[in-house]
Amino acid sequence: MALAIMCSGGDAPGMNPAIKKFVDYAFKRGQKHYFIHHGLEGMIDGEITEASHSDVAGILHRGGAIIRSSRSKRFFEYEYRKQAFENLKKYDITGLVVLGGDGSFRAMQRFSEEFPLNFVGIPTTIDNDIYGTDYCLGVDTALNVIRDALDKIRDTASTFDRAFVVEVMGRECGYLAVVSALASGAEICIIPEADFNIKVAEKQLLEEVAGGRGYILAVVAEGTGKTAEIAEWLESTIGLETRVSILGHIQRGGNPTVTDRLMAFEFVIHAIDHLLHSRDANKVVYYRDGAYGLMEIDDVVSHTYTIDSELLSAINLID
Amino acid sequence: MALAIMCSGGDAPGMNPAIKKFVDYAFKRGQKHYFIHHGLEGMIDGEITEASHSDVAGILHRGGAIIRSSRSKRFFEYEYRKQAFENLKKYDITGLVVLGGDGSFRAMQRFSEEFPLNFVGIPTTIDNDIYGTDYCLGVDTALNVIRDALDKIRDTASTFDRAFVVEVMGRECGYLAVVSALASGAEICIIPEADFNIKVAEKQLLEEVAGGRGYILAVVAEGTGKTAEIAEWLESTIGLETRVSILGHIQRGGNPTVTDRLMAFEFVIHAIDHLLHSRDANKVVYYRDGAYGLMEIDDVVSHTYTIDSELLSAINLID
Amino acid sequence: MALAIMCSGGDAPGMNPAIKKFVDYAFKRGQKHYFIHHGLEGMIDGEITEASHSDVAGILHRGGAIIRSSRSKRFFEYEYRKQAFENLKKYDITGLVVLGGDGSFRAMQRFSEEFPLNFVGIPTTIDNDIYGTDYCLGVDTALNVIRDALDKIRDTASTFDRAFVVEVMGRECGYLAVVSALASGAEICIIPEADFNIKVAEKQLLEEVAGGRGYILAVVAEGTGKTAEIAEWLESTIGLETRVSILGHIQRGGNPTVTDRLMAFEFVIHAIDHLLHSRDANKVVYYRDGAYGLMEIDDVVSHTYTIDSELLSAINLID
Amino acid sequence: MALAIMCSGGDAPGMNPAIKKFVDYAFKRGQKHYFIHHGLEGMIDGEITEASHSDVAGILHRGGAIIRSSRSKRFFEYEYRKQAFENLKKYDITGLVVLGGDGSFRAMQRFSEEFPLNFVGIPTTIDNDIYGTDYCLGVDTALNVIRDALDKIRDTASTFDRAFVVEVMGRECGYLAVVSALASGAEICIIPEADFNIKVAEKQLLEEVAGGRGYILAVVAEGTGKTAEIAEWLESTIGLETRVSILGHIQRGGNPTVTDRLMAFEFVIHAIDHLLHSRDANKVVYYRDGAYGLMEIDDVVSHTYTIDSELLSAINLID
Repeated sequence: MALAIMCSGGDAPGMNPAIKKFVDYAFKRGQKHYFIHHGLEGMIDGEITEASHSDVAGILHRGGAIIRSSRSKRFFEYEYRKQAFENLKKYDITGLVVLGGDGSFRAMQRFSEEFPLNFVGIPTTIDNDIYGTDYCLGVDTALNVIRDALDKIRDTASTFDRAFVVEVMGRECGYLAVVSALASGAEICIIPEADFNIKVAEKQLLEEVAGGRGYILAVVAEGTGKTAEIAEWLESTIGLETRVSILGHIQRGGNPTVTDRLMAFEFVIHAIDHLLHSRDANKVVYYRDGAYGLMEIDDVVSHTYTIDSELLSAINLID
Repeated sequence: MALAIMCSGGDAPGMNPAIKKFVDYAFKRGQKHYFIHHGLEGMIDGEITEASHSDVAGILHRGGAIIRSSRSKRFFEYEYRKQAFENLKKYDITGLVVLGGDGSFRAMQRFSEEFPLNFVGIPTTIDNDIYGTDYCLGVDTALNVIRDALDKIRDTASTFDRAFVVEVMGRECGYLAVVSALASGAEICIIPEADFNIKVAEKQLLEEVAGGRGYILAVVAEGTGKTAEIAEWLESTIGLETRVSILGHIQRGGNPTVTDRLMAFEFVIHAIDHLLHSRDANKVVYYRDGAYGLMEIDDVVSHTYTIDSELLSAINLID
Repeated sequence: MALAIMCSGGDAPGMNPAIKKFVDYAFKRGQKHYFIHHGLEGMIDGEITEASHSDVAGILHRGGAIIRSSRSKRFFEYEYRKQAFENLKKYDITGLVVLGGDGSFRAMQRFSEEFPLNFVGIPTTIDNDIYGTDYCLGVDTALNVIRDALDKIRDTASTFDRAFVVEVMGRECGYLAVVSALASGAEICIIPEADFNIKVAEKQLLEEVAGGRGYILAVVAEGTGKTAEIAEWLESTIGLETRVSILGHIQRGGNPTVTDRLMAFEFVIHAIDHLLHSRDANKVVYYRDGAYGLMEIDDVVSHTYTIDSELLSAINLID
Repeated sequence: MALAIMCSGGDAPGMNPAIKKFVDYAFKRGQKHYFIHHGLEGMIDGEITEASHSDVAGILHRGGAIIRSSRSKRFFEYEYRKQAFENLKKYDITGLVVLGGDGSFRAMQRFSEEFPLNFVGIPTTIDNDIYGTDYCLGVDTALNVIRDALDKIRDTASTFDRAFVVEVMGRECGYLAVVSALASGAEICIIPEADFNIKVAEKQLLEEVAGGRGYILAVVAEGTGKTAEIAEWLESTIGLETRVSILGHIQRGGNPTVTDRLMAFEFVIHAIDHLLHSRDANKVVYYRDGAYGLMEIDDVVSHTYTIDSELLSAINLID
């Protein structure tokens, strides 16, 4: 019997600390341990190597994932899943730690129902939109990258009378946008989960601009598709020269923060402990109300994450 | 009736976000609100000003505290406490938010027993050593400053065969040292709360160095006073050229992280809400097991913080 | 007789160190010294204050400009220029240090021909596109902000097979784009001054992708307007999933680097020295071939900056 | 005939960009190219490998040197130098690029006199103390790391009445200390090349503290050995609570700045061009008055670097 680790889907800061802890902790527990490179694609193609301490030396502070990730269409076909399983069998791999999101967990669930395999998922996405956990690996680093960008903009903003629109990641979830807006004191925040009452904002902002307000900072979640629209509105209706930044992939990059490193370590320890102690597969590690635990994969994939209502109540504020 | 905010004792990142939220939230709740500048010294000398939005514009990302802090010997004398109270009375200040640590809370407790005054303390110290709360304001920023330093050292460490000793803050508490050592994969961690078994470490390190280990990273808590001793031991006994860094005050500086901003906001909101809803003074806000609450000041000052045993169990590991 | 300093046009990192040195050095030279706030608009409206050491304490590391900047349409009218001059006369200001670009220098030239006034311009723009100087204030900080963004993207890029398009500032000048692309090893760089031979690049990239190249990093200067086009080409023709970042205003923000602080100091010292030693107005400070000097304002505004041909020769390389 | 690159002596930021450019440019010029790992020690032990593009992918932003460095006592003995030369001969290496300082250049000079070998040295040290060049690789990154530390300290300094003593690197040269002190507005700077007139400073500081000065920032070069003494003086004579930071090895670490990357590229291009065009060995690349060139190794090792007198004249200023 042996353990393996794999990244699947979008990348997020914290993957490398998780990979390092996987090697260290599996070694400590006396288990053989492998890397599956390049995600599900690599599993199909047999890109599996035994992992050693030297592979993970000096990677804690590096962004990305040294074992790479992928999205796989082939894995939807039984034939390829069978081929993937044959590859695992060669190395006697029966326990799998998977860093990924909803889609990856769903794929693994099906896989583990068809073949004798245990897996534990570690929720990993900067969107923080996986059901059942308060925290997904990568979020803290992403938030601090955004904070750094917003600080740079605000620092110079007072020099000019301007509006700034900053688009942050988040396809269906406004978590990054809301928390960034709060942490940086943005005046406007546009997210998929809430209507932006443009009439109310317009009235208030026009009054404030008339009263001397020099600048406005708006944070827009990518998934709303409203970046250009908000910029146009600020320029023509509110009457401020407006500048747009689209942060894009820099949010997924960078040196993992202390929180993302510690979360990575704890997630991996709980994942390996579960794989070693229990025959009960298909779990996802969670962090909720200050504690770690394991939840059913069914729970995760059959529910949709909803943003905390307290966060939602905060976003219409203009301070 | 009016509210005031004050910083007392050592500075920590997150004070400025707390000060900004104090102004915004007191305003939202319709309360008059004041700054007490320069801590207890300023309270004695009447350095009190009405706070406005413009005072706190653009301060979220600045280190330090715009209203300054102090330590006060005069405040131990009744005469000066009376004078301080007279100053508060001039502005009708009856509720006080105090950013500080054990010593400051103790001083405020006595003060509030002698005079009709409510206060709520917000645990603020990068040492994270206040009883009853999992988190003290400033810790996350300090940890990430230390991480940045350790990353820089580790990044170049493989270039040379060397040992590095890094002294971090923590007079009586090894929290910063332990968490930094874990997050950065340091081989050695020396803290006040635990004996360092030098014989065990020596045997293991000599074996590892003989086996090719090129470098060693040791994190030492300031309070142990052992920085020079450990450096000497690494150089003469373990046989590696050794370099020392003493990080010092840079750990208290810098732009507050997202976590420290959000914690500052929540601590302040809970503090003001309590001051407005209750006549029951002398509380300290806590964050424990994922939730906020208020604890008796007696509890805080009559107990001593002890470091989490799980953290302690981790520090003798050499990975 | 007194000196004044003013920011005009777009903001750039390094303005605050220049403002601080202006105060310190004018004081050292025994001159009365003033701030003109809010650029030419503030000069028209009489926003002039005497500058003191306490105004500039602790500003070296802050982005933006504490005295703010502006663009002014009114200044094109003689009547307002006259009004501006009357304001200067009130304070006996006869020497003016102006942080700005071509447009601002042209405005000042006219102003100083009409009224008895000396000014020295300090070339200040992250675009680095002012004729006659190798360096404009703010460039080094902007380049390092872009580098940080490109590093974050590259760090994670190997995790996935992707193309990344990063749009950087530069309306008519590709300096930032070229230097950033070189410093970060980008495969593609698109600037206003050079044609991008898409056929050559296409052939080479298709070969490389066929040969296993996993990712491509393209840096595009804003002024080309080709960001979307290049992204589309990489996605559909080259066949890589493509992501776009538009860095925007974060490039103007942030803590000035050591180079920008030292350049700011030198520029200001040369400007003040010239104003004090010479009745010969209308100069711009330059830094060329490792030395500082003063050039005629006519030279600056009658020539167009052209990018260094050695830089141009480097940008078609794919490494 | 083939080229090789080697790091020797202390590490400095910018080594990895130089190593990357060496591979790219030697390839472009059609030369076989090798890495000598682990400096002179590795040359003796035959740690030589052919270099490829994949070795240097993604290293531009990493601190340290992927080919490592060393100091070698064995190389002082002829026998080992002969052995080193035999190793080079195996690979037909006749041209060598050496990243290092005075000591390394001296060793290489002797080596190249004894054996048929050309080498070009690239001045590489954060101390910036090599004769004949205005710039040594690594300096800009080190200065910005120090700036970041001093900014963190200054940011919080106003919160308290304190003195801060920060020790920076520089064994015999105060360059880092002087430039850092200037760039950060430190009040005191202590370097090996200049006497610190403690009586004058004492008088002035006591007056200023009496007049309300809250804090003092002192930058001390490591080589003076006066860190503790200055701290003691500030505490007992000037009367301010004083804190010490010893930055240590973090100054050698971290992501190379844009300047260090571009300097690394240019230094390497000039070094390789010289090795290919000329039989005239034993040169060191310089950057002086804005231009690159090659100087005799004899010049470098027979002269001592002296700090710029303009810098010296600035350090006694208290602003």
